[in-house]
Amino acid sequence: MNTKDKIIHTSISLFNEHGERAISTNHIASHLGMSPGNLYYHFKNKEDIIRHIFALYSEHLHTHFKPIEVNDDAFDHLTAYLDSLFELMWRYHFFYDNLGDILSRDESLKKAYIDFQATLLEQVRQVILGLRDNEMIAIQEQDALELAHTLKLTVSFWTPYIKARRLSGNLAEQDIYHGILKVLALFRAYSTEKSMLKMNQLREKYTQLAEQAPALA
Amino acid sequence: MNTKDKIIHTSISLFNEHGERAISTNHIASHLGMSPGNLYYHFKNKEDIIRHIFALYSEHLHTHFKPIEVNDDAFDHLTAYLDSLFELMWRYHFFYDNLGDILSRDESLKKAYIDFQATLLEQVRQVILGLRDNEMIAIQEQDALELAHTLKLTVSFWTPYIKARRLSGNLAEQDIYHGILKVLALFRAYSTEKSMLKMNQLREKYTQLAEQAPALA
Repeated sequence: MNTKDKIIHTSISLFNEHGERAISTNHIASHLGMSPGNLYYHFKNKEDIIRHIFALYSEHLHTHFKPIEVNDDAFDHLTAYLDSLFELMWRYHFFYDNLGDILSRDESLKKAYIDFQATLLEQVRQVILGLRDNEMIAIQEQDALELAHTLKLTVSFWTPYIKARRLSGNLAEQDIYHGILKVLALFRAYSTEKSMLKMNQLREKYTQLAEQAPALA
Repeated sequence: MNTKDKIIHTSISLFNEHGERAISTNHIASHLGMSPGNLYYHFKNKEDIIRHIFALYSEHLHTHFKPIEVNDDAFDHLTAYLDSLFELMWRYHFFYDNLGDILSRDESLKKAYIDFQATLLEQVRQVILGLRDNEMIAIQEQDALELAHTLKLTVSFWTPYIKARRLSGNLAEQDIYHGILKVLALFRAYSTEKSMLKMNQLREKYTQLAEQAPALA
């Protein structure tokens, strides 16, 4: 791993663990045993680091999403998509813990985020319409857009929601699965006779994963 | 209005307009044409003001919620509840724009917030079960709890969600109605034959309100 990637990697860990606001470029440099000057050789400031992290985040979502094909198993597709979304949310959760603040400091990042959100909304809407075309859910066109917004909002703000309800503010691995179960419930509400059994199997799967995953220490 | 109430009232306005982080006790005092010393006579610090605001917020929700009775019109009840929730969210939206940050600075506030969230979750669950008992929605007990969480999350984080998607970061009155439409879609997904017409009427009502409400200047 080159120095630039090491700085990004360490920044993500420190931001997630202590909150983005509490971590300065000095903390990051000191954690890597490098001088602040060396860090500034690679990144102009903390905003510059965050912009690079956002690019990774945004890229991850583009590379991991494939539109559903007619012969695909719609449920395998949905499972893979849910796993991928929540893994992403978990890996970069500091971003949503302090979203308004981070975006208000950096207009170019905010513009990139707005574009990204529009793409993501359309991506989620396509997943919904793909499930509808496979008769896995029964939903009207107008509701598909409402549901896409609610899904996106739920995934994005799941970690701040959990943290605000816990005195320590810490997250545990099982929180991911509880989040996936919320999203799954949103789909189950539109399930068809054809899909109900599969939906229940998926719910069972994530309930078990939540039970087996490490709770808070 | 006495001085204490004036300080609270002005603080809410300034926090909502400029964000809680950007406003100091000095800004609040200066906006009221009073000395910082006079403000400190009433409140120890900004956290003390926020704690009083939270008490108002929390009280509002308790006084405006009445459990559904057998003879009540379940839809009138739901409409009143939705209006009340979103009015509340609108009036205190600065709080959710910066939730994690505000709570992390004040452990006693965080404790009060966690208790409040537990009460609110049960309140929302009772609304859901009331609609079920009136055969307005068909939902399993397990899904009722999942739905209660998702509803609460959607209402709480609706304003930060909107703000993050808009370069100015400003809110408009029609955003409230678009938020209510999201929540209504969550209920519609569980609607019964008996309730579908009423659900569609409610959707129509809030769509019209959204169209008539002032958009962003």
